[in-house]
Amino acid sequence: MNITKEQIQDFPKYYRANFINSLSGFKSSSLIGTKNKRGITNLALFSSVIHVGANPPLMGFLVRPASVPRHTYSNIKETEYFTINHVNYNIFDKAHITSARFHENESEFVKSNLTEEYQNNFYAPFVKESKIKIALKFVEEKLIEINQTIFVIGEILEIHLSQEIIGEDGSLNIESAETVAISGLSSYHKTKLIEKLPYAKSF
Amino acid sequence: MNITKEQIQDFPKYYRANFINSLSGFKSSSLIGTKNKRGITNLALFSSVIHVGANPPLMGFLVRPASVPRHTYSNIKETEYFTINHVNYNIFDKAHITSARFHENESEFVKSNLTEEYQNNFYAPFVKESKIKIALKFVEEKLIEINQTIFVIGEILEIHLSQEIIGEDGSLNIESAETVAISGLSSYHKTKLIEKLPYAKSF
Repeated sequence: MNITKEQIQDFPKYYRANFINSLSGFKSSSLIGTKNKRGITNLALFSSVIHVGANPPLMGFLVRPASVPRHTYSNIKETEYFTINHVNYNIFDKAHITSARFHENESEFVKSNLTEEYQNNFYAPFVKESKIKIALKFVEEKLIEINQTIFVIGEILEIHLSQEIIGEDGSLNIESAETVAISGLSSYHKTKLIEKLPYAKSF
Repeated sequence: MNITKEQIQDFPKYYRANFINSLSGFKSSSLIGTKNKRGITNLALFSSVIHVGANPPLMGFLVRPASVPRHTYSNIKETEYFTINHVNYNIFDKAHITSARFHENESEFVKSNLTEEYQNNFYAPFVKESKIKIALKFVEEKLIEINQTIFVIGEILEIHLSQEIIGEDGSLNIESAETVAISGLSSYHKTKLIEKLPYAKSF
């Protein structure tokens, strides 16, 4: 069947959000950890984290400043530092709780029962229960004018992970690290490798 | 274990590409179809397609103009129109072929043995074998200055899919549509739903 732009505009708001959020396929599932200057931590679930480049090593994500994960953005602007932590299938339900709206003075770590962890004096908190944890420094942001979202880019400073998941060619077995994928707004999926194909090129 | 920025810089190029591309978790797997003004079609695999907004309905992806999918970008700039087609597990190996480098006058449709399809006079080609096909119009682009990649945003004009995969709440069962997830540069995964949690909020 065919669904047109006009039909989408007529969808009820929540139906439309579910529908459009499903169109981008399977998505990464990341907890972004930050801490403001007063020392209050924040943890928020994002499904928009993507690879931006390998040299320098960069990751980016899209933030909606007017919606819930706004403390993520303001904390990054205030301190420059943040962490990206893979969500695995032991913690996806706790991770999901962080997407509810909390007061600025309430840490999502407390609300979600996930554990703050600090490594090598890095300012922002990691998630102890995560198996792949990345320390980043803010480098650039781009305002998407059409809907006032912001694409935030960070440079990777350090990675914490188990050596066992690193393959001979440098690729990570994120499936054995139990990382989950998201579809739509709130469906969590395990994965099963079909095939690792020979290198074609970076895309 | 700990891996630092300095160690990453010392990795061999291909090892580093594999490693950094694995850090962003599971990724969407999309074929982007375009056609230049001379009528030559292009098809390229992208793992960076993300949800940008539901109202207006927007999707975005990151393009490296200096690398292979460059015709995607130049065709979109030339004609404004493009399609995003979900890769399913019947065609992932054909889709992967499109990431190799071809001459501008060679269509990846021919090389990959995927089938061009046209619907409702939309200028850009869809992939017949795909089960979720989206027609978009270019609306905005943002240059990421640090590595000269470009985040391209399109507005959704029309969607072609089977009614069976649309849930009561508007979410799509992309797992039953056999959409695959990518990890790293070239690993393709099936998924298995763990749980669909109650709505927390859009993230």
